[in-house]
Amino acid sequence: MNHEALNLEEKFSRFSEHWSPRVIAEMNDTQFKLVKAKGEFVWHSHSDTDEVFIVISGVLDIEFRDGNIRLEAGEMFVVPKGVEHRPVAREECRLMLMEPKGVVNTGDIGGDLTAENDIWV
Amino acid sequence: MNHEALNLEEKFSRFSEHWSPRVIAEMNDTQFKLVKAKGEFVWHSHSDTDEVFIVISGVLDIEFRDGNIRLEAGEMFVVPKGVEHRPVAREECRLMLMEPKGVVNTGDIGGDLTAENDIWV
Repeated sequence: MNHEALNLEEKFSRFSEHWSPRVIAEMNDTQFKLVKAKGEFVWHSHSDTDEVFIVISGVLDIEFRDGNIRLEAGEMFVVPKGVEHRPVAREECRLMLMEPKGVVNTGDIGGDLTAENDIWV
Repeated sequence: MNHEALNLEEKFSRFSEHWSPRVIAEMNDTQFKLVKAKGEFVWHSHSDTDEVFIVISGVLDIEFRDGNIRLEAGEMFVVPKGVEHRPVAREECRLMLMEPKGVVNTGDIGGDLTAENDIWV
C-alpha cells in the first residue's frame, strides 16, 4: 500500500490556472479537488449533488439568489443540490472541493469557464 | 436557505473529549466529522468504506500492518476500505474525518473506545 501523505501546499504548488479543479484523492466515489479561484465564476447549479467548499487561504464569497455567504480560511459550506450559486474571489483564494466523481465545475450551465474534468495533480 | 459558514475553530471549541467524532456537515450521504485525538487508538478496519483523515493541527501517526504514515497540519490520507489501521497522537491532534454516514469509529472491532455515532456539534 502507498504510505505517502497528501500535502495540500505541495499539491497547490503544481498548478496556477484559476477555476480549474485538480483532483488529489478519492474516497469511494467522492473526489477531493483543489481549486485556485480569482474573479467571478458563473451562476450555476448541480442538479444531482451537494457540493462542499473549504477555504484553505484567502476569502471566497458565494452568492445565492437569496443572499450571500463569505468564507475565510478554515471555514466550509455545503451548497445543497440544485441550488444556484456563483463563487466570487476578489483576490486569489485557494479552496478544496468535495463532490462525487464526474461533477463538472459549471454544473448544468456550461460555457467558457467549463474546465476539463478529472485532472489529477 | 441557511447562509452560515461552518468555522472549524468554533466547532472544535464546543467539545473536548478525545476519540469522540462530532458531525459538522453532510454532503449527500457523506459526513464531515471533527475529532480530537490523543494517545493510542485501537487497531480496526472499515469493511465497507474508505476513510479520509485531514490533520487540522498537531501530528497524527497512522500505523498500518505494513508500515506507518505521519500526517501534519495541512496533510491528508485516504485509508482504503478494509485496511487495518491504528491512529496514534503523541500530543493532542485535531482532525477532520470524511466517511459515509453510519460509520462507527472502531469499525468492525468494537471495544471501550467505540463512540456514540452521529453526534452533531
